[in-house]
Amino acid sequence: MGQKKFRDERGLFVVEGEKLVEEAMRSGFDIVGHYRMEEIGEETMARISQLTHPSPVLAVVRQPSQPALPSVEPDELVLALDGIRDPGNLGTILRIADWFGIRHVLASADTVELYNPKVVQATMGAIFRVQVYYGDLTRSFASLRMTAVYGTFLEGDTIYQTPLTKGGILVMGSEANGISPEVAATVTQKLYIPPYPAGAHTSESLNVAVATAIACSEFRRR
Amino acid sequence: MGQKKFRDERGLFVVEGEKLVEEAMRSGFDIVGHYRMEEIGEETMARISQLTHPSPVLAVVRQPSQPALPSVEPDELVLALDGIRDPGNLGTILRIADWFGIRHVLASADTVELYNPKVVQATMGAIFRVQVYYGDLTRSFASLRMTAVYGTFLEGDTIYQTPLTKGGILVMGSEANGISPEVAATVTQKLYIPPYPAGAHTSESLNVAVATAIACSEFRRR
Repeated sequence: MGQKKFRDERGLFVVEGEKLVEEAMRSGFDIVGHYRMEEIGEETMARISQLTHPSPVLAVVRQPSQPALPSVEPDELVLALDGIRDPGNLGTILRIADWFGIRHVLASADTVELYNPKVVQATMGAIFRVQVYYGDLTRSFASLRMTAVYGTFLEGDTIYQTPLTKGGILVMGSEANGISPEVAATVTQKLYIPPYPAGAHTSESLNVAVATAIACSEFRRR
Repeated sequence: MGQKKFRDERGLFVVEGEKLVEEAMRSGFDIVGHYRMEEIGEETMARISQLTHPSPVLAVVRQPSQPALPSVEPDELVLALDGIRDPGNLGTILRIADWFGIRHVLASADTVELYNPKVVQATMGAIFRVQVYYGDLTRSFASLRMTAVYGTFLEGDTIYQTPLTKGGILVMGSEANGISPEVAATVTQKLYIPPYPAGAHTSESLNVAVATAIACSEFRRR
């Protein structure tokens, strides 16, 4: 279950820890197995667990089939991820989306797999509430027919002073390369999270999950 | 060097990767060793590296001696960390502090060690610019004599609508337990980052680094 190949073949994924397993049970997801360490023993648990320190409870859950693109209200905020590669980042971003009431997340085909154990654990349960749609982003944007597409760029307008619509698509780019040129071409408003004081010599950038959090917070604050 | 005991005894730490090593060289830190894989060979590099995939360059850096508490201007924003345990979180928080021009970070004694390799790598170089002071937080607060102490709590006032002073101390609590009671008693304004829509059933909380980012962004936006 630790390998993508096996997860794909069997269409299953693993959820670990009291809190996450509880969330899985309460969700509409299909639980195909539920294991407690006190029942199966420490050794067996260590073998099926993906964690360095296995937790006392683990569930095997069926992957829902890849959903069709949703129809989205004009005032809905949709998140789009262009090539996020780090599982911890993807999981944290889904947790942020969940917190800020974002129900639909579009992910480019080269975004890390949703059912990677590190993604699942980092979502802290958001994986059961936020829908993720993998596929070509520009094609997805076209079919959603939203008029505002926001993205963060180094040469963007300061997010704090830029008018933001309630609904639209917010694109976040990959850790290494940012937003790809094809996707950038569809962006209608480039945004920038300025350092403090403006123009200060600091770290080159913010982590993508951190930038997502600040941008979502700005959209929801207004 | 992977073990805290050895790092402490020798007063050294390891920095890996082109970008980070470059930042180390440009900083005022004392570089006691500089190694390139092409010179020392892949095997030796794998032995001294802390990473699963060793990078082509590594530096051994002397830990500066623990600094005395700074004197802080009344309009300065100081970050305080109460029991952050996850190295990735601490590193990410220092990167956020650096981005938002926070020069001084107070850390409780039970906060994860600054020179843990995962902390160092996650700072992306911020470790060379942000000063971290370990010690009893309430004592540090008293000696800084700042009048405003902010902290995030589930029962706090919505951060977007609460007046924030330019200077003050912003306390972030541990991943598992939040802000400890002793430190909470010194907080003059409790803050809360609300989910959207307000009161929505979502994830129980935001990751502490994510919450730090949103709070810092709010302070700096004003």
